[in-house]
Amino acid sequence: MLHIDTQRLLDSLQTLGQFGALPGGGVNRLALTDADQAARDWTVAQMRALDMQVQVDAIGNVIATYAGSEDLPPVMMGSHIDTVRTGGLYDGNLGVMAGLEVVRTLRQAGVRTRRPLAVAFFTNEEGARFQPDMLGSLVYVGGLPLEQALQTRAVDGPLLGEELIRIGYDGAAQVGQPAVDSYFELHIEQGPVLDQAGIQIGVVEGVQGIYWTRLTFSGKSNHAGTTPMHLRRDAGMAAMRTAAFVHDLVQRMGGGQLATVGSLELEPNLVNVIAAEASMTVDLRNTDAQVLAAARAQLHAYAMQCATAHGVQLQTQVLADFAPVAFDAEMIASIERHAKQAGLSTLRLPSGAGHDAQMLARICPAAMIFVPSVDGVSHNVHEYTPPADLGRGAQVLLQAVLERANR
Amino acid sequence: MLHIDTQRLLDSLQTLGQFGALPGGGVNRLALTDADQAARDWTVAQMRALDMQVQVDAIGNVIATYAGSEDLPPVMMGSHIDTVRTGGLYDGNLGVMAGLEVVRTLRQAGVRTRRPLAVAFFTNEEGARFQPDMLGSLVYVGGLPLEQALQTRAVDGPLLGEELIRIGYDGAAQVGQPAVDSYFELHIEQGPVLDQAGIQIGVVEGVQGIYWTRLTFSGKSNHAGTTPMHLRRDAGMAAMRTAAFVHDLVQRMGGGQLATVGSLELEPNLVNVIAAEASMTVDLRNTDAQVLAAARAQLHAYAMQCATAHGVQLQTQVLADFAPVAFDAEMIASIERHAKQAGLSTLRLPSGAGHDAQMLARICPAAMIFVPSVDGVSHNVHEYTPPADLGRGAQVLLQAVLERANR
Repeated sequence: MLHIDTQRLLDSLQTLGQFGALPGGGVNRLALTDADQAARDWTVAQMRALDMQVQVDAIGNVIATYAGSEDLPPVMMGSHIDTVRTGGLYDGNLGVMAGLEVVRTLRQAGVRTRRPLAVAFFTNEEGARFQPDMLGSLVYVGGLPLEQALQTRAVDGPLLGEELIRIGYDGAAQVGQPAVDSYFELHIEQGPVLDQAGIQIGVVEGVQGIYWTRLTFSGKSNHAGTTPMHLRRDAGMAAMRTAAFVHDLVQRMGGGQLATVGSLELEPNLVNVIAAEASMTVDLRNTDAQVLAAARAQLHAYAMQCATAHGVQLQTQVLADFAPVAFDAEMIASIERHAKQAGLSTLRLPSGAGHDAQMLARICPAAMIFVPSVDGVSHNVHEYTPPADLGRGAQVLLQAVLERANR
Repeated sequence: MLHIDTQRLLDSLQTLGQFGALPGGGVNRLALTDADQAARDWTVAQMRALDMQVQVDAIGNVIATYAGSEDLPPVMMGSHIDTVRTGGLYDGNLGVMAGLEVVRTLRQAGVRTRRPLAVAFFTNEEGARFQPDMLGSLVYVGGLPLEQALQTRAVDGPLLGEELIRIGYDGAAQVGQPAVDSYFELHIEQGPVLDQAGIQIGVVEGVQGIYWTRLTFSGKSNHAGTTPMHLRRDAGMAAMRTAAFVHDLVQRMGGGQLATVGSLELEPNLVNVIAAEASMTVDLRNTDAQVLAAARAQLHAYAMQCATAHGVQLQTQVLADFAPVAFDAEMIASIERHAKQAGLSTLRLPSGAGHDAQMLARICPAAMIFVPSVDGVSHNVHEYTPPADLGRGAQVLLQAVLERANR
């Protein structure tokens, strides 16, 4: 039986983590920045060193193929290597580095699978610099026109297409090529469930639906000391009340409905000036599409009513809208079986976060493997998964991919 | 009878408004910036051209004295020439330019008052770059030690003392000199009361108490999709709930109690990351010291309770704390009498905003004259007072100052 090398996998994650490393630990590697370019260049060099054929497509997705004994659609492994502004070593990176470690293990043992293997990393999964998130894989599966994606503006100004050219990742390959047999993604859970239950392998059944919206309230700036409360048009208060409402709402709803107001900005943002404008985001998630739709409808109804009550205007922009996704039953069963055969504890669970796998699931059978995140910490410089858990996840990935590629 | 020249007053306001002028109208002249330096230099040149003796004190207050027939403490007029980031032509500037117009009118007519006249502008009245607001006049009256004031850090980094040196306004004069007989401040109302009632002159009886606090909530950043609601430590939600609470509170309290959350910042401020830190300000005002104290106590009690409920830490910083101020009864009566003698409509009212006059009231008789603000718009580039109203206010100032200085 083949075994992946946990230390080698860990080394590759730590080397990759040096691109965009933050002084106090953690990584800031927003999509298509200089740090992302450096990380891409290094990863591509790793791929080439494994005799993989590397192609870059027009949205900057990188797909490296390791030939099989037959010229069939490859079994793909992958994820992303961009991070949030205060990210860790594992989110996304693990799926890519574990894919390369699987290829490295096979190559070292001189093993060729029947179907080719591919390792991919997709552009702008995090959505921290360009919206929507999972943009590269969304374009790959035909969910967003290439031209529209290239016109997406970064939070710091430039267009996505300009940034691809700037860092040299405006590739020649057509998006959506090659057609793939199936897609496996190993990822940290990014939540507390496995860690708290002491479970080694999460067998992911699907992904929550995700809805992101930006609400922009426009009122009138005025003096905080001379404007009676009833004459105000306070955009900030309308936004903050809407935030409090949605938080109350999901707690009343229960059942795993999530809501997050992670971003809010006031203008002019001064202590003694009533805010003329307030821009906030709301992130809603649920595995149940109907409940998610209900939360979304109540949010928008309240925001409109609140805007009216405060005498302010409301503009709504949908930033992301993904229905819940179910993964492939056969691949799920295979992952679970290989984990159990290796004596590992398993738990079937949904993914709370969005992943490239949910996009790939639109065009091929797809599945995910989770390993624990200590304390569920994620999108945080303190994100951590012990090396033994990383190794277990990569080993299950290897076994499941071998079975799939040799069938 | 002497008459001020309204057109000349207007010209001086418009010239002053060119320093820090914003492209679309309005003024951005934060205290001790390059724009403030240019405005100070121009104003000092105007003072010198009127044969006034100019002194700059150690906190950058500028006081120009026009000699009287006797060497007595001067009757002072003044205000400030710094603005908020999105200010207008009139706030503060009117009090200084009208003071100079009074002196100009007397000088042109060859009139000397018994007591000297002084025109002053005080450093950092707005509090938009350094906190607390009304800093220069506060130091002038001994309410804040000079050394502490010089160590105040700007929102953009440098210390106040460094900025005074940089722009050449670290003056040699001792703060609090000269002792003054009395202080008059002409100002736009910055509120809607006079404009809505069609009143020409506001006779200001006193100033609301002002309390500013910064509340900083510290929680834990985490993934918006994988962290169950009950396991979150969401600093942003604690802040936004506290904002909604204080808004509800003052509406329940009624009676002129004001509350404004003008500034709120989240970290890391990303759509899919629970905020680790939220920093907000609350501005509370009331003419009734007891009611203001009650609002303040309820705010802090709720914020603490809310922090605990969200599992986040709370740090509180008091940025400003000024008790309500009553102006001098004799000066109030004099202003009212001169306005009525000129056939103008008057209304006694409190000031909702803080003004340098409330500081001067600690050391000498003080009073203020208000002119209408169209629609009550203030701290806004659309701030506007018609020229005729500016002229009426300056004329009442002239008459009241003449009476006071010749008594």
